[in-house]
Amino acid sequence: MKIAITGKGGVGKTTIAGTLSRIFAEEGYKVLAIDADPDANLASALGVPEEISKKIMPFSKMRKLAAERTEASESYGGLFILNPKVDDLPDQFCVDHQGVKLLVMGTVEQGGGGCVCPEHTLLKRLMRHLLVERDEVVIMDMEAGIEHLGRGTADAVDVMIIVAEPGYRSIETALRIRSLAKDVGIKKLFVIGSKLRGEEDAEFIRTCLPEIPYLGSLPFCQDIIEADLNRRALFDAGNGASVLALKKIQERLMAEGE
Amino acid sequence: MKIAITGKGGVGKTTIAGTLSRIFAEEGYKVLAIDADPDANLASALGVPEEISKKIMPFSKMRKLAAERTEASESYGGLFILNPKVDDLPDQFCVDHQGVKLLVMGTVEQGGGGCVCPEHTLLKRLMRHLLVERDEVVIMDMEAGIEHLGRGTADAVDVMIIVAEPGYRSIETALRIRSLAKDVGIKKLFVIGSKLRGEEDAEFIRTCLPEIPYLGSLPFCQDIIEADLNRRALFDAGNGASVLALKKIQERLMAEGE
Repeated sequence: MKIAITGKGGVGKTTIAGTLSRIFAEEGYKVLAIDADPDANLASALGVPEEISKKIMPFSKMRKLAAERTEASESYGGLFILNPKVDDLPDQFCVDHQGVKLLVMGTVEQGGGGCVCPEHTLLKRLMRHLLVERDEVVIMDMEAGIEHLGRGTADAVDVMIIVAEPGYRSIETALRIRSLAKDVGIKKLFVIGSKLRGEEDAEFIRTCLPEIPYLGSLPFCQDIIEADLNRRALFDAGNGASVLALKKIQERLMAEGE
Repeated sequence: MKIAITGKGGVGKTTIAGTLSRIFAEEGYKVLAIDADPDANLASALGVPEEISKKIMPFSKMRKLAAERTEASESYGGLFILNPKVDDLPDQFCVDHQGVKLLVMGTVEQGGGGCVCPEHTLLKRLMRHLLVERDEVVIMDMEAGIEHLGRGTADAVDVMIIVAEPGYRSIETALRIRSLAKDVGIKKLFVIGSKLRGEEDAEFIRTCLPEIPYLGSLPFCQDIIEADLNRRALFDAGNGASVLALKKIQERLMAEGE
Protein backbone atom coordinates (compact mmCIF):
# COMPACT_ATOMS: atom_id res chain seq x y z
CA MET A 1 0.00 0.00 0.00
CA LYS A 2 1.25 3.48 -0.88
CA ILE A 3 0.03 6.01 1.65
CA ALA A 4 0.36 9.79 1.40
CA ILE A 5 -0.13 11.91 4.50
CA THR A 6 -1.12 15.50 3.99
CA GLY A 7 -2.88 18.47 5.63
CA LYS A 8 -2.25 22.03 6.78
CA GLY A 9 1.19 22.82 8.18
CA GLY A 10 1.60 21.97 11.85
CA VAL A 11 -1.35 19.60 12.26
CA GLY A 12 0.89 16.64 13.02
CA LYS A 13 1.58 15.06 9.60
CA THR A 14 5.20 14.24 10.31
CA THR A 15 4.56 12.81 13.78
CA ILE A 16 1.79 10.63 12.33
CA ALA A 17 3.88 9.53 9.32
CA GLY A 18 6.87 8.67 11.52
CA THR A 19 4.87 6.84 14.17
CA LEU A 20 2.73 4.89 11.68
CA SER A 21 5.95 3.82 9.93
CA ARG A 22 7.34 2.45 13.16
CA ILE A 23 4.04 0.70 13.98
CA PHE A 24 3.94 -0.99 10.55
CA ALA A 25 7.57 -2.07 10.99
CA GLU A 26 6.79 -3.54 14.41
CA GLU A 27 3.99 -5.54 12.78
CA GLY A 28 6.53 -7.07 10.41
CA TYR A 29 6.00 -4.95 7.32
CA LYS A 30 8.88 -3.69 5.23
CA VAL A 31 8.39 0.06 5.39
CA LEU A 32 9.68 2.76 3.08
CA ALA A 33 9.15 6.19 4.63
CA ILE A 34 9.53 9.10 2.23
CA ASP A 35 10.13 12.61 3.45
CA ALA A 36 8.65 14.64 0.61
CA ASP A 37 8.57 17.92 2.50
CA PRO A 38 11.32 20.33 1.41
CA ASP A 39 11.41 21.47 5.02
CA ALA A 40 12.36 17.94 5.98
CA ASN A 41 12.15 16.47 9.47
CA LEU A 42 10.72 12.95 9.18
CA ALA A 43 14.05 11.52 10.34
CA SER A 44 13.62 12.91 13.84
CA ALA A 45 9.98 11.73 14.02
CA LEU A 46 11.23 8.23 13.14
CA GLY A 47 13.90 8.41 15.83
CA VAL A 48 16.89 8.36 13.47
CA PRO A 49 19.86 9.66 15.50
CA GLU A 50 21.00 13.13 14.42
CA GLU A 51 24.54 11.98 13.52
CA ILE A 52 23.02 9.51 11.03
CA SER A 53 20.26 11.75 9.65
CA LYS A 54 22.85 14.44 8.91
CA LYS A 55 24.58 12.03 6.52
CA ILE A 56 21.48 11.20 4.45
CA MET A 57 21.98 12.17 0.84
CA PRO A 58 18.76 13.70 -0.45
CA PHE A 59 17.20 11.87 -3.36
CA SER A 60 17.16 15.10 -5.36
CA LYS A 61 20.96 14.92 -5.48
CA MET A 62 20.72 11.59 -7.24
CA ARG A 63 19.21 13.41 -10.17
CA LYS A 64 22.10 15.84 -10.23
CA LEU A 65 24.61 13.00 -10.00
CA ALA A 66 22.88 11.17 -12.82
CA ALA A 67 22.77 14.29 -14.93
CA GLU A 68 26.46 14.95 -14.34
CA ARG A 69 27.43 11.44 -15.32
CA THR A 70 25.50 11.29 -18.52
CA GLU A 71 25.34 14.99 -19.37
CA ALA A 72 21.56 14.80 -19.74
CA SER A 73 19.12 16.30 -17.31
CA GLU A 74 16.35 13.74 -17.73
CA SER A 75 18.50 10.67 -17.32
CA TYR A 76 17.96 9.88 -13.66
CA GLY A 77 15.57 7.11 -14.70
CA GLY A 78 18.61 5.15 -15.80
CA LEU A 79 19.66 4.72 -12.19
CA PHE A 80 16.65 2.50 -11.63
CA ILE A 81 15.81 -0.78 -13.18
CA LEU A 82 12.31 -0.82 -14.71
CA ASN A 83 9.62 -1.18 -12.02
CA PRO A 84 11.99 -1.20 -9.04
CA LYS A 85 11.08 -2.82 -5.74
CA VAL A 86 11.58 -1.19 -2.38
CA ASP A 87 14.71 -3.33 -1.91
CA ASP A 88 16.24 -2.01 -5.13
CA LEU A 89 16.58 1.53 -3.78
CA PRO A 90 20.27 2.28 -3.57
CA ASP A 91 21.57 2.16 -0.03
CA GLN A 92 23.40 5.45 -0.28
CA PHE A 93 20.07 7.26 -0.53
CA CYS A 94 18.35 5.42 2.31
CA VAL A 95 18.97 4.89 5.98
CA ASP A 96 17.59 1.86 7.77
CA HIS A 97 16.21 2.47 11.23
CA GLN A 98 14.26 -0.08 13.26
CA GLY A 99 12.89 -1.76 10.15
CA VAL A 100 12.05 1.49 8.37
CA LYS A 101 13.90 2.59 5.24
CA LEU A 102 13.96 6.39 5.04
CA LEU A 103 14.27 8.28 1.78
CA VAL A 104 14.62 12.07 1.92
CA MET A 105 13.58 13.98 -1.18
CA GLY A 106 15.78 16.92 -0.35
CA THR A 107 15.66 20.45 0.92
CA VAL A 108 16.38 23.72 -0.78
CA GLU A 109 20.07 24.09 -0.17
CA GLN A 110 20.79 27.58 -1.24
CA GLY A 111 18.69 30.72 -1.02
CA GLY A 112 17.56 31.86 -4.44
CA GLY A 113 18.29 28.41 -5.82
CA GLY A 114 15.07 27.95 -7.72
CA CYS A 115 12.04 25.76 -7.32
CA VAL A 116 11.76 22.11 -6.28
CA CYS A 117 9.32 21.11 -9.01
CA PRO A 118 11.79 18.79 -10.80
CA GLU A 119 12.17 16.90 -7.49
CA HIS A 120 8.40 16.49 -7.31
CA THR A 121 8.31 15.05 -10.81
CA LEU A 122 11.08 12.67 -9.80
CA LEU A 123 9.14 11.56 -6.72
CA LYS A 124 6.00 11.02 -8.76
CA ARG A 125 7.85 8.82 -11.22
CA LEU A 126 9.44 6.81 -8.46
CA MET A 127 6.11 6.31 -6.71
CA ARG A 128 4.36 5.28 -9.90
CA HIS A 129 6.90 2.66 -10.83
CA LEU A 130 7.67 1.27 -7.41
CA LEU A 131 6.19 -2.22 -7.05
CA VAL A 132 4.87 -2.65 -3.55
CA GLU A 133 4.36 -6.22 -2.30
CA ARG A 134 1.71 -7.27 0.19
CA ASP A 135 4.17 -7.17 3.08
CA GLU A 136 5.43 -3.74 2.13
CA VAL A 137 4.11 -0.29 2.80
CA VAL A 138 5.24 3.11 1.55
CA ILE A 139 4.40 6.13 3.70
CA MET A 140 4.95 9.59 2.29
CA ASP A 141 5.06 12.70 4.47
CA MET A 142 3.84 15.32 2.02
CA GLU A 143 4.73 18.97 2.11
CA ALA A 144 2.58 21.35 4.16
CA GLY A 145 -0.37 22.75 2.30
CA ILE A 146 -1.45 21.65 -1.11
CA GLU A 147 1.22 22.56 -3.63
CA HIS A 148 2.19 18.92 -4.12
CA LEU A 149 -1.29 18.18 -5.45
CA GLY A 150 -1.01 21.01 -7.91
CA ARG A 151 2.12 19.35 -9.12
CA GLY A 152 0.37 16.04 -9.54
CA THR A 153 2.56 14.09 -7.13
CA ALA A 154 -0.41 12.39 -5.56
CA ASP A 155 -1.74 10.40 -8.50
CA ALA A 156 0.81 7.75 -7.63
CA VAL A 157 -0.64 6.79 -4.24
CA ASP A 158 -3.29 4.28 -3.15
CA VAL A 159 -4.50 6.01 -0.02
CA MET A 160 -4.37 9.65 0.97
CA ILE A 161 -4.82 10.64 4.59
CA ILE A 162 -5.71 14.23 5.43
CA VAL A 163 -4.75 15.27 8.95
CA ALA A 164 -7.06 17.94 10.37
CA GLU A 165 -7.12 19.77 13.69
CA PRO A 166 -10.15 21.51 15.18
CA GLY A 167 -10.05 24.94 13.52
CA TYR A 168 -11.43 26.46 10.34
CA ARG A 169 -8.11 26.98 8.61
CA SER A 170 -7.20 23.33 8.87
CA ILE A 171 -10.70 22.44 7.61
CA GLU A 172 -10.35 24.85 4.68
CA THR A 173 -7.10 23.15 3.70
CA ALA A 174 -8.76 19.73 4.03
CA LEU A 175 -11.60 20.82 1.75
CA ARG A 176 -9.16 22.12 -0.84
CA ILE A 177 -7.14 18.90 -0.67
CA ARG A 178 -10.32 16.87 -1.11
CA SER A 179 -11.25 18.83 -4.21
CA LEU A 180 -7.74 18.57 -5.70
CA ALA A 181 -7.52 14.87 -4.79
CA LYS A 182 -10.70 14.32 -6.80
CA ASP A 183 -9.14 16.15 -9.76
CA VAL A 184 -6.05 13.95 -9.76
CA GLY A 185 -8.10 10.78 -9.19
CA ILE A 186 -7.13 9.66 -5.68
CA LYS A 187 -9.29 6.62 -4.94
CA LYS A 188 -9.20 6.37 -1.15
CA LEU A 189 -9.27 9.44 1.01
CA PHE A 190 -9.44 9.43 4.82
CA VAL A 191 -9.25 12.01 7.57
CA ILE A 192 -7.52 11.77 10.95
CA GLY A 193 -8.57 14.22 13.66
CA SER A 194 -5.48 15.60 15.43
CA LYS A 195 -4.88 17.66 18.60
CA LEU A 196 -8.40 16.88 19.81
CA ARG A 197 -9.30 18.23 23.24
CA GLY A 198 -12.34 15.98 23.51
CA GLU A 199 -15.11 14.18 21.64
CA GLU A 200 -16.70 17.51 20.60
CA ASP A 201 -13.53 18.37 18.66
CA ALA A 202 -13.77 15.05 16.77
CA GLU A 203 -17.43 15.81 16.11
CA PHE A 204 -16.49 19.26 14.78
CA ILE A 205 -14.14 17.68 12.22
CA ARG A 206 -16.64 14.98 11.20
CA THR A 207 -19.37 17.58 10.78
CA CYS A 208 -17.16 19.87 8.69
CA LEU A 209 -15.88 17.02 6.50
CA PRO A 210 -18.89 14.70 6.16
CA GLU A 211 -17.80 13.26 2.82
CA ILE A 212 -14.38 12.04 3.95
CA PRO A 213 -14.36 8.75 5.90
CA TYR A 214 -13.06 9.39 9.44
CA LEU A 215 -10.15 7.07 10.22
CA GLY A 216 -9.58 7.93 13.86
CA SER A 217 -8.64 10.47 16.52
CA LEU A 218 -5.35 11.63 17.96
CA PRO A 219 -5.84 13.43 21.29
CA PHE A 220 -4.09 16.69 22.23
CA CYS A 221 -1.37 15.19 24.37
CA GLN A 222 1.76 16.42 26.11
CA ASP A 223 3.61 13.25 25.00
CA ILE A 224 3.88 14.61 21.43
CA ILE A 225 5.19 18.01 22.61
CA GLU A 226 7.66 16.31 24.94
CA ALA A 227 8.91 13.97 22.19
CA ASP A 228 9.61 16.96 19.92
CA LEU A 229 11.27 18.94 22.75
CA ASN A 230 13.55 15.99 23.51
CA ARG A 231 14.22 15.22 19.83
CA ARG A 232 12.89 11.74 20.34
CA ALA A 233 10.49 9.57 18.32
CA LEU A 234 7.01 9.48 19.83
CA PHE A 235 7.04 5.70 19.23
CA ASP A 236 10.15 5.31 21.41
CA ALA A 237 8.40 6.98 24.35
CA GLY A 238 6.36 3.78 24.73
CA ASN A 239 2.65 3.06 24.66
CA GLY A 240 1.31 6.48 25.66
CA ALA A 241 -2.11 7.74 24.65
CA SER A 242 -0.90 9.02 21.27
CA VAL A 243 0.86 5.81 20.22
CA LEU A 244 -2.13 3.72 21.29
CA ALA A 245 -4.42 5.99 19.25
CA LEU A 246 -2.17 5.59 16.21
CA LYS A 247 -2.11 1.79 16.62
CA LYS A 248 -5.91 1.81 16.40
CA ILE A 249 -5.69 4.05 13.35
CA GLN A 250 -3.21 1.67 11.70
CA GLU A 251 -5.58 -1.28 12.29
CA ARG A 252 -8.48 0.58 10.69
CA LEU A 253 -6.24 1.64 7.81
CA MET A 254 -5.34 -1.99 7.11
CA ALA A 255 -8.99 -3.00 7.28
CA GLU A 256 -10.39 -0.19 5.12
CA GLY A 257 -7.46 0.87 2.98
CA GLU A 258 -6.96 -2.39 1.04
CA MET B 1 8.61 48.76 6.02
CA LYS B 2 8.22 45.47 4.15
CA ILE B 3 7.88 42.61 6.60
CA ALA B 4 7.89 38.91 5.73
CA ILE B 5 6.62 36.41 8.28
CA THR B 6 7.87 32.87 7.99
CA GLY B 7 8.48 29.66 9.95
CA LYS B 8 7.46 26.01 10.09
CA GLY B 9 3.86 25.19 9.16
CA GLY B 10 1.39 25.60 12.02
CA VAL B 11 3.50 27.77 14.31
CA GLY B 12 1.11 30.72 14.03
CA LYS B 13 2.43 32.73 11.06
CA THR B 14 -0.99 33.59 9.67
CA THR B 15 -2.47 34.56 13.03
CA ILE B 16 0.54 36.79 13.69
CA ALA B 17 0.49 38.33 10.19
CA GLY B 18 -3.24 39.02 10.38
CA THR B 19 -3.18 40.44 13.89
CA LEU B 20 -0.08 42.60 13.32
CA SER B 21 -1.77 43.99 10.21
CA ARG B 22 -4.83 45.01 12.23
CA ILE B 23 -2.63 46.52 14.98
CA PHE B 24 -0.66 48.61 12.46
CA ALA B 25 -3.95 49.76 10.88
CA GLU B 26 -5.30 50.78 14.29
CA GLU B 27 -2.14 52.85 14.80
CA GLY B 28 -2.95 54.76 11.60
CA TYR B 29 -0.65 53.01 9.15
CA LYS B 30 -1.81 52.13 5.65
CA VAL B 31 -1.34 48.38 5.60
CA LEU B 32 -0.99 46.05 2.66
CA ALA B 33 -1.30 42.43 3.79
CA ILE B 34 -0.15 39.84 1.27
CA ASP B 35 -1.19 36.24 1.50
CA ALA B 36 1.72 34.52 -0.22
CA ASP B 37 0.83 31.03 0.95
CA PRO B 38 -0.72 28.90 -1.81
CA ASP B 39 -2.80 27.31 0.93
CA ALA B 40 -4.27 30.73 1.61
CA ASN B 41 -6.15 31.76 4.75
CA LEU B 42 -4.91 35.21 5.77
CA ALA B 43 -8.38 36.64 4.98
CA SER B 44 -9.96 34.81 7.91
CA ALA B 45 -7.12 35.81 10.27
CA LEU B 46 -7.76 39.44 9.28
CA GLY B 47 -11.48 39.04 9.92
CA VAL B 48 -12.60 39.50 6.33
CA PRO B 49 -16.14 38.08 6.12
CA GLU B 50 -16.34 34.82 4.16
CA GLU B 51 -18.77 36.18 1.55
CA ILE B 52 -16.21 38.89 0.71
CA SER B 53 -13.08 36.75 0.88
CA LYS B 54 -14.67 34.27 -1.53
CA LYS B 55 -14.83 37.00 -4.16
CA ILE B 56 -11.15 37.97 -3.99
CA MET B 57 -9.48 37.45 -7.32
CA PRO B 58 -6.03 35.98 -6.73
CA PHE B 59 -3.15 38.08 -7.97
CA SER B 60 -1.86 35.12 -9.99
CA LYS B 61 -4.90 35.47 -12.23
CA MET B 62 -3.82 38.99 -13.11
CA ARG B 63 -0.84 37.49 -14.86
CA LYS B 64 -3.09 35.23 -16.88
CA LEU B 65 -5.38 38.13 -17.76
CA ALA B 66 -2.41 40.22 -18.81
CA ALA B 67 -1.00 37.38 -20.86
CA GLU B 68 -4.33 36.84 -22.59
CA ARG B 69 -4.71 40.49 -23.47
CA THR B 70 -1.28 40.95 -24.95
CA GLU B 71 -0.52 37.39 -26.01
CA ALA B 72 2.76 37.44 -24.15
CA SER B 73 3.47 35.51 -20.98
CA GLU B 74 5.87 37.99 -19.42
CA SER B 75 3.73 41.04 -19.94
CA TYR B 76 2.04 41.35 -16.58
CA GLY B 77 4.46 44.12 -15.71
CA GLY B 78 2.52 46.29 -18.11
CA LEU B 79 -0.38 46.36 -15.71
CA PHE B 80 1.69 48.36 -13.26
CA ILE B 81 3.15 51.76 -13.62
CA LEU B 82 6.88 51.85 -12.87
CA ASN B 83 7.53 51.75 -9.11
CA PRO B 84 3.89 51.49 -8.04
CA LYS B 85 2.67 52.68 -4.66
CA VAL B 86 0.40 50.70 -2.40
CA ASP B 87 -2.51 52.88 -3.52
CA ASP B 88 -1.88 52.03 -7.17
CA LEU B 89 -2.80 48.38 -6.69
CA PRO B 90 -5.92 47.75 -8.72
CA ASP B 91 -9.01 47.47 -6.56
CA GLN B 92 -10.25 44.31 -8.19
CA PHE B 93 -7.30 42.43 -6.73
CA CYS B 94 -7.56 43.83 -3.22
CA VAL B 95 -10.19 43.94 -0.52
CA ASP B 96 -10.19 46.66 2.09
CA HIS B 97 -11.00 45.56 5.61
CA GLN B 98 -10.64 47.78 8.69
CA GLY B 99 -7.82 49.77 7.12
CA VAL B 100 -5.99 46.75 5.77
CA LYS B 101 -5.69 46.11 2.04
CA LEU B 102 -5.48 42.37 1.37
CA LEU B 103 -3.82 40.90 -1.68
CA VAL B 104 -4.03 37.15 -2.24
CA MET B 105 -1.34 35.60 -4.41
CA GLY B 106 -3.50 32.67 -5.36
CA THR B 107 -3.98 29.00 -4.68
CA VAL B 108 -3.48 26.01 -6.89
CA GLU B 109 -6.86 25.70 -8.54
CA GLN B 110 -6.73 22.38 -10.23
CA GLY B 111 -4.99 19.15 -9.23
CA GLY B 112 -2.11 18.38 -11.55
CA GLY B 113 -2.06 22.02 -12.62
CA GLY B 114 1.66 22.57 -12.29
CA CYS B 115 3.85 24.57 -9.97
CA VAL B 116 3.36 28.03 -8.50
CA CYS B 117 6.87 29.29 -9.21
CA PRO B 118 5.76 31.89 -11.78
CA GLU B 119 3.50 33.37 -9.09
CA HIS B 120 6.48 33.62 -6.75
CA THR B 121 8.49 35.46 -9.36
CA LEU B 122 5.56 37.82 -9.83
CA LEU B 123 5.36 38.48 -6.09
CA LYS B 124 9.08 39.15 -5.89
CA ARG B 125 8.88 41.70 -8.68
CA LEU B 126 5.93 43.41 -7.09
CA MET B 127 7.67 43.57 -3.70
CA ARG B 128 10.87 44.91 -5.20
CA HIS B 129 9.21 47.73 -7.06
CA LEU B 130 6.59 48.70 -4.54
CA LEU B 131 7.43 52.06 -3.00
CA VAL B 132 6.52 52.03 0.67
CA GLU B 133 6.10 55.39 2.40
CA ARG B 134 6.82 56.03 6.07
CA ASP B 135 3.16 55.67 7.02
CA GLU B 136 2.81 52.44 5.10
CA VAL B 137 3.65 48.88 5.97
CA VAL B 138 3.54 45.70 3.90
CA ILE B 139 3.12 42.41 5.76
CA MET B 140 3.60 39.17 3.87
CA ASP B 141 2.41 35.83 5.19
CA MET B 142 4.89 33.49 3.57
CA GLU B 143 4.25 29.90 2.71
CA ALA B 144 4.90 27.19 5.29
CA GLY B 145 8.43 25.90 5.29
CA ILE B 146 11.22 27.35 3.27
CA GLU B 147 10.50 26.88 -0.41
CA HIS B 148 9.85 30.58 -0.92
CA LEU B 149 13.44 31.36 0.06
CA GLY B 150 14.70 28.84 -2.45
CA ARG B 151 12.73 30.73 -5.00
CA GLY B 152 14.29 34.03 -3.95
CA THR B 153 11.06 35.73 -2.98
CA ALA B 154 12.53 37.11 0.18
CA ASP B 155 15.23 39.39 -1.18
CA ALA B 156 12.57 42.04 -1.61
CA VAL B 157 11.82 42.52 2.09
CA ASP B 158 13.26 44.80 4.79
CA VAL B 159 12.56 42.63 7.81
CA MET B 160 12.03 38.91 8.09
CA ILE B 161 10.38 37.47 11.18
CA ILE B 162 10.76 33.76 11.92
CA VAL B 163 8.00 32.35 14.11
CA ALA B 164 9.20 29.43 16.25
CA GLU B 165 7.42 27.22 18.76
CA PRO B 166 9.15 25.19 21.48
CA GLY B 167 10.12 22.00 19.65
CA TYR B 168 13.13 20.83 17.66
CA ARG B 169 11.41 20.63 14.30
CA SER B 170 10.37 24.26 14.43
CA ILE B 171 13.92 25.18 15.51
CA GLU B 172 15.41 23.17 12.62
CA THR B 173 13.21 25.09 10.20
CA ALA B 174 14.27 28.37 11.83
CA LEU B 175 17.94 27.47 11.45
CA ARG B 176 17.46 26.59 7.79
CA ILE B 177 15.58 29.84 7.19
CA ARG B 178 18.37 31.77 8.88
CA SER B 179 20.96 30.18 6.65
CA LEU B 180 18.91 30.76 3.49
CA ALA B 181 18.06 34.31 4.56
CA LYS B 182 21.80 34.98 4.79
CA ASP B 183 22.28 33.60 1.28
CA VAL B 184 19.66 35.90 -0.22
CA GLY B 185 20.89 38.89 1.79
CA ILE B 186 18.08 39.61 4.23
CA LYS B 187 19.30 42.44 6.45
CA LYS B 188 17.08 42.25 9.52
CA LEU B 189 16.02 38.92 10.94
CA PHE B 190 14.00 38.48 14.14
CA VAL B 191 12.39 35.58 15.95
CA ILE B 192 9.01 35.48 17.74
CA GLY B 193 8.43 32.65 20.24
CA SER B 194 4.94 31.20 19.75
CA LYS B 195 2.70 28.79 21.72
CA LEU B 196 4.88 29.29 24.80
CA ARG B 197 3.71 27.48 27.95
CA GLY B 198 5.99 29.54 30.16
CA GLU B 199 9.25 31.46 30.46
CA GLU B 200 11.27 28.22 30.10
CA ASP B 201 9.81 27.75 26.60
CA ALA B 202 10.96 31.27 25.62
CA GLU B 203 14.37 30.45 27.08
CA PHE B 204 14.49 27.22 25.02
CA ILE B 205 13.96 29.20 21.80
CA ARG B 206 16.47 31.91 22.73
CA THR B 207 19.06 29.26 23.62
CA CYS B 208 18.51 27.35 20.38
CA LEU B 209 18.61 30.48 18.22
CA PRO B 210 21.18 32.71 19.93
CA GLU B 211 22.14 34.58 16.77
CA ILE B 212 18.64 35.78 15.89
CA PRO B 213 17.38 38.82 17.89
CA TYR B 214 14.33 37.80 19.95
CA LEU B 215 11.41 40.11 19.22
CA GLY B 216 8.90 38.83 21.74
CA SER B 217 6.71 36.03 23.06
CA LEU B 218 3.23 34.84 22.22
CA PRO B 219 1.81 32.62 24.98
CA PHE B 220 -0.04 29.35 24.34
CA CYS B 221 -3.54 30.68 24.72
CA GLN B 222 -7.07 29.36 24.22
CA ASP B 223 -8.07 32.70 22.64
CA ILE B 224 -6.22 31.81 19.43
CA ILE B 225 -7.83 28.35 19.22
CA GLU B 226 -11.26 29.85 19.92
CA ALA B 227 -10.81 32.54 17.26
CA ASP B 228 -9.97 29.89 14.65
CA LEU B 229 -12.86 27.65 15.74
CA ASN B 230 -15.28 30.57 15.43
CA ARG B 231 -13.76 31.81 12.16
CA ARG B 232 -13.09 35.15 13.78
CA ALA B 233 -10.07 37.44 13.75
CA LEU B 234 -8.06 37.22 16.97
CA PHE B 235 -7.89 41.04 16.92
CA ASP B 236 -11.71 41.29 16.98
CA ALA B 237 -11.87 39.20 20.15
CA GLY B 238 -10.54 42.25 22.04
CA ASN B 239 -7.48 42.81 24.17
CA GLY B 240 -6.82 39.25 25.30
CA ALA B 241 -3.38 37.98 26.28
CA SER B 242 -2.40 37.19 22.68
CA VAL B 243 -3.38 40.57 21.23
CA LEU B 244 -1.60 42.39 24.06
CA ALA B 245 1.53 40.31 23.43
CA LEU B 246 1.38 41.17 19.73
CA LYS B 247 0.96 44.89 20.50
CA LYS B 248 4.20 44.72 22.48
CA ILE B 249 5.84 42.90 19.59
CA GLN B 250 4.64 45.56 17.14
CA GLU B 251 6.15 48.30 19.34
CA ARG B 252 9.50 46.55 19.44
CA LEU B 253 9.35 45.95 15.71
CA MET B 254 8.87 49.68 15.07
CA ALA B 255 11.75 50.51 17.41
CA GLU B 256 14.22 47.94 16.10
CA GLY B 257 13.07 47.27 12.55
CA GLU B 258 13.63 50.73 11.09
